[in-house]
Amino acid sequence: MTDSGKQSLVIVPLSNGESAEMENGMSEAALTESSGQQEPKLLDACEDKYDGVTVELGNVPLDVDGFVSSLTVSLSKWAQQGKKGVWIKVPKNHANLVPAVIDEGFWYHHAERDYVMLVYWIPKSPCTLPANASHQVGVGGFVMNDNRELLVVQEKDGPYRGSGIWKWPTGLLHQGEDIFEGAIREVKEETGIDTEFVEVGGIRHSHDAPFEKSDIFFMCILRPLSFDIKMQESEIAAARWMPIEEFARQPRYQANELYKKILDVCIATFEKRCKGFCAVKLASSSAKRPSVFYYNDQEVNDANSLNGAVR
Amino acid sequence: MTDSGKQSLVIVPLSNGESAEMENGMSEAALTESSGQQEPKLLDACEDKYDGVTVELGNVPLDVDGFVSSLTVSLSKWAQQGKKGVWIKVPKNHANLVPAVIDEGFWYHHAERDYVMLVYWIPKSPCTLPANASHQVGVGGFVMNDNRELLVVQEKDGPYRGSGIWKWPTGLLHQGEDIFEGAIREVKEETGIDTEFVEVGGIRHSHDAPFEKSDIFFMCILRPLSFDIKMQESEIAAARWMPIEEFARQPRYQANELYKKILDVCIATFEKRCKGFCAVKLASSSAKRPSVFYYNDQEVNDANSLNGAVR
Repeated sequence: MTDSGKQSLVIVPLSNGESAEMENGMSEAALTESSGQQEPKLLDACEDKYDGVTVELGNVPLDVDGFVSSLTVSLSKWAQQGKKGVWIKVPKNHANLVPAVIDEGFWYHHAERDYVMLVYWIPKSPCTLPANASHQVGVGGFVMNDNRELLVVQEKDGPYRGSGIWKWPTGLLHQGEDIFEGAIREVKEETGIDTEFVEVGGIRHSHDAPFEKSDIFFMCILRPLSFDIKMQESEIAAARWMPIEEFARQPRYQANELYKKILDVCIATFEKRCKGFCAVKLASSSAKRPSVFYYNDQEVNDANSLNGAVR
Repeated sequence: MTDSGKQSLVIVPLSNGESAEMENGMSEAALTESSGQQEPKLLDACEDKYDGVTVELGNVPLDVDGFVSSLTVSLSKWAQQGKKGVWIKVPKNHANLVPAVIDEGFWYHHAERDYVMLVYWIPKSPCTLPANASHQVGVGGFVMNDNRELLVVQEKDGPYRGSGIWKWPTGLLHQGEDIFEGAIREVKEETGIDTEFVEVGGIRHSHDAPFEKSDIFFMCILRPLSFDIKMQESEIAAARWMPIEEFARQPRYQANELYKKILDVCIATFEKRCKGFCAVKLASSSAKRPSVFYYNDQEVNDANSLNGAVR
């Protein structure tokens, strides 16, 4: 995996192994010149722990021919050095370089809103570059009150539009959001109900997500802290507290073995007949911020537990 | 979310609402003509359940100016129709169209090896298009034999290269692979040991994955079915069965609260002092293949359980 290098593209002469310490404008100018008679300059790149190199292009316009010449000599140099994976991050405003990079044999690795990442594998051996992100992560909130009424909604858009199906609030995690936070947020957004996290009741893994990706769905048991529903008008058609037996009688939860099992497990977890996974924040020397570890804390107590903490 | 429409780009006259039933070559020729005096033709697109449209470009070369004219009139038409999200899937060999699509106001949504997906949001309201895949999913195998020896490896590459750290076998899921399968595969690949899945002991969620993505790691408890190690030469520097106390004495598991907790939970689960999540395959009417649901089956038995089944 590459380090996410912060360096912009700067140009160094072939005869000089050190990076030229130039400001961005200077280096871009040098690149443009390189399309003339001058010898093409090497692209400056960050190295990673897997013998790979990453080139990040800055925001100043680049001359396509000069860039391609630099890329070609750089690839030769990296091959001599025994480098393996080559990563080029092309920002949106350099989209005119994308066809040229592809012509050099690169392929797309992934894209985010403002850039596309292209990769190339130098050795003859099989490519071992890591895959693009493979999963979307969803969360659902199982929120039951003391009268055994479940907090349920009907959706305005999507596959259940107009179906009359009542479901628990669900949604996708935001970038960088923790699972327990996402479940609390989705319930709050869709219904206005405040909750606290209790446990993960179960996890569904499926492979029918859009764009040939997979989906992991965390069914979270949440305890309600408020009870007056304020429905989200934009996405939700209806919201209410519904007796759990009425909810369970819906065909979606009777005829479908997956949804029936999720419901059975949530009720059993709510009733303390079985134990879900708690959540604890734990520091690790290899991570910038604490990870959250989800596990059964029946015998393994932890002072860091986030379960039932009022936020 | 869009349906993954299979339609290629075909061109229909503005005066004719129905798609012209032309073969690809024909339609591409028509598009090229449209860059001349003729009125630009609408792009043909698949509609989805979220009032969105998807355009997929075929493999025949396209004239950039003709394509841009068609895109412009199509966007106007879709706006009149109240469409919201517009998705354009551009294969690698049409990379020359990417700058033009971006000039029309589109941005990157995601990319896979051979294409990039660009999107645009027509309404004035906030964009509600779903995000790109957000997570990589890793698996680890906790494999202990009856002598309380843990199956451990040292890695050849990456952050632990040359560190002397012994760790449990780990890896990323392949596309479409189930979690329990991935754990069994990684252990087999790295050490040659056959195992069967018992439980998920715990799940780590962190946000330090490459490319600003997040990571979900499933620590799987596996039962060994063979004992003679055949190490993977390409990625593994060493592999052995190690007494669990010796393993636990490593600083990585003593000084790091995350790794110490994972180890404690795995040992407690192995010793049946607490219960992890089992795995069951369950059909759902909304999915093409069964999902796997992971949960505590202490009180909720299931005939579909995959736990301990020899594969």
